[in-house]
Amino acid sequence: MPTYACDLAAVRAAAERLKGAAHRTPVMTSATLDRLAGRRLFFKCENLQKVGAFKYRGAANAVRKLSDTDAAKGVVTHSSGNHAQALALAARERGVPAYIVMPKTAPAVKRAAVEGYGGQVTLCEPNLADRERAANELVARTGAALIPPFDHPDVIAGQGTVALELLEGVPDLDALVVCLGGGGLVSGCAIAATGVKPGTRVFGAEPLGADDAARSKAAGEWLPQTGPNTIADGLLTSTGQLTWPVIRDLVERVFTVSDDEIRAAMRLVWERMKLIVEPSGAVGAAVALSEAFKSLPGLAKVGVVFSGGNVNLDKLWW
Amino acid sequence: MPTYACDLAAVRAAAERLKGAAHRTPVMTSATLDRLAGRRLFFKCENLQKVGAFKYRGAANAVRKLSDTDAAKGVVTHSSGNHAQALALAARERGVPAYIVMPKTAPAVKRAAVEGYGGQVTLCEPNLADRERAANELVARTGAALIPPFDHPDVIAGQGTVALELLEGVPDLDALVVCLGGGGLVSGCAIAATGVKPGTRVFGAEPLGADDAARSKAAGEWLPQTGPNTIADGLLTSTGQLTWPVIRDLVERVFTVSDDEIRAAMRLVWERMKLIVEPSGAVGAAVALSEAFKSLPGLAKVGVVFSGGNVNLDKLWW
Repeated sequence: MPTYACDLAAVRAAAERLKGAAHRTPVMTSATLDRLAGRRLFFKCENLQKVGAFKYRGAANAVRKLSDTDAAKGVVTHSSGNHAQALALAARERGVPAYIVMPKTAPAVKRAAVEGYGGQVTLCEPNLADRERAANELVARTGAALIPPFDHPDVIAGQGTVALELLEGVPDLDALVVCLGGGGLVSGCAIAATGVKPGTRVFGAEPLGADDAARSKAAGEWLPQTGPNTIADGLLTSTGQLTWPVIRDLVERVFTVSDDEIRAAMRLVWERMKLIVEPSGAVGAAVALSEAFKSLPGLAKVGVVFSGGNVNLDKLWW
Repeated sequence: MPTYACDLAAVRAAAERLKGAAHRTPVMTSATLDRLAGRRLFFKCENLQKVGAFKYRGAANAVRKLSDTDAAKGVVTHSSGNHAQALALAARERGVPAYIVMPKTAPAVKRAAVEGYGGQVTLCEPNLADRERAANELVARTGAALIPPFDHPDVIAGQGTVALELLEGVPDLDALVVCLGGGGLVSGCAIAATGVKPGTRVFGAEPLGADDAARSKAAGEWLPQTGPNTIADGLLTSTGQLTWPVIRDLVERVFTVSDDEIRAAMRLVWERMKLIVEPSGAVGAAVALSEAFKSLPGLAKVGVVFSGGNVNLDKLWW
């Protein structure tokens, strides 16, 4: 068996590290969604996690694992999304600086959110080269540790605690459905779930407009995401060097859903479960409600992750 | 001590009757709202109750308490709101008919919701006289039991189970803040809370645009609500013959909040707690965040009821 970025022991260690820091989010159910899905669904509510997304787990695990000497120098990342906020908060909780590189085109509200958690924002040009230059410059100047959004062993291990808790709450799950952008969440969950309970089937959930993982699985080789176009703005990136091998080997299949399906699932969750999920956060539910997934036999109980709930409430989503 | 519509024993009996029927809704907290309120708040999430509102408790208690002979004849109510849906569902669960009288001006979506739960809708003219005529006619024709939205001992006892569960979950609460329209919820909660733990302070929360209970308390006598005007459309009615004496005696004070305060609290709950509450459901939170309430000394831990989460998602609320 090949070795991946982390193993079950690392996920369990992350769970210990996150005790008293991350919320143990509730698992919720809905008779209406069960009826529509044709099976029982158990939703792990990471939209109720700190900073409104599972990202806090990976960021906090990485920050807490640093030695005191390393931690004192701070942490760096380039992100304008939930990971940036998560890292800023995790750093503040440890009393160390967080340097966040953000494209100068990022919405002011995202910058304000990071600064609200105490993060120090550095603006860069909106391209990969300048983003990496800015981050590397910060690392060189401060000695801070670079904690990328998903392709990092401690981040993946932290995200895996989602599956650990879900299976502790509902031990007889047959499968998990986990949304997938860079793949930190799904690979951590796959390592945890198949480790804790071999035979648990793990499925990826991807927007049709950013379906690199589905295409990669079909091709049997890593393919990048180019020109993503989807409402699920947390799932735009390609999978990474550490996450792809896990997805290749431990994720049975990646299902895709259209933006209309994502929007419909999101509305259903708001309307029937009274829970705010963001578009990316509803992609797992959209897959669970899709005809392709419903036609899979042998899945009586399925865990689905609501990955986040950070939305702009000033717009109508439907 | 005067006798009210029900007592703690009746609330406890309701809790037994609702076991396995009503959801034991979670109690949620938010560091952000605690900071804004200047104390610890514990939110009882009745927006996650069946039909999306606490109303299910009172309706189901009333339906389940009927003898088999009486139940077989069905139940009647006049309501176009959450109580109508709740009664329809409770009746369907017992396998008996629910006759719902609704003004013909009620939105189609509300009629569809009641029919979705199996309720049989009778339309009437949009005035009290015709509504009562239609309901009485149904009672005369079918022998069904009239279950009004709040002014009924079994309904009040059912709603009281909200406070029972809240105090079981957080036994050291100093006070409850409960929103107030007809007063079924607040009176049931006041009976339960002061019964289980004498000394628990119970406060009402009312929209400024429908402040009959606040005015009644100030006057020391029952006053009706006329011309209500508020975004909190579940709280428009006057208190009733059974609920008013409880409010008069067991509710320490009724606080009022403006529609702007209600809207701001509602948005805060959506944004920070990722929970959908309807305007009426956010009135308790709005009071907890108001300067008047914040200035009360001696309240370290306060329970607040999110009464419901049924909103029109096709409009922006802010």
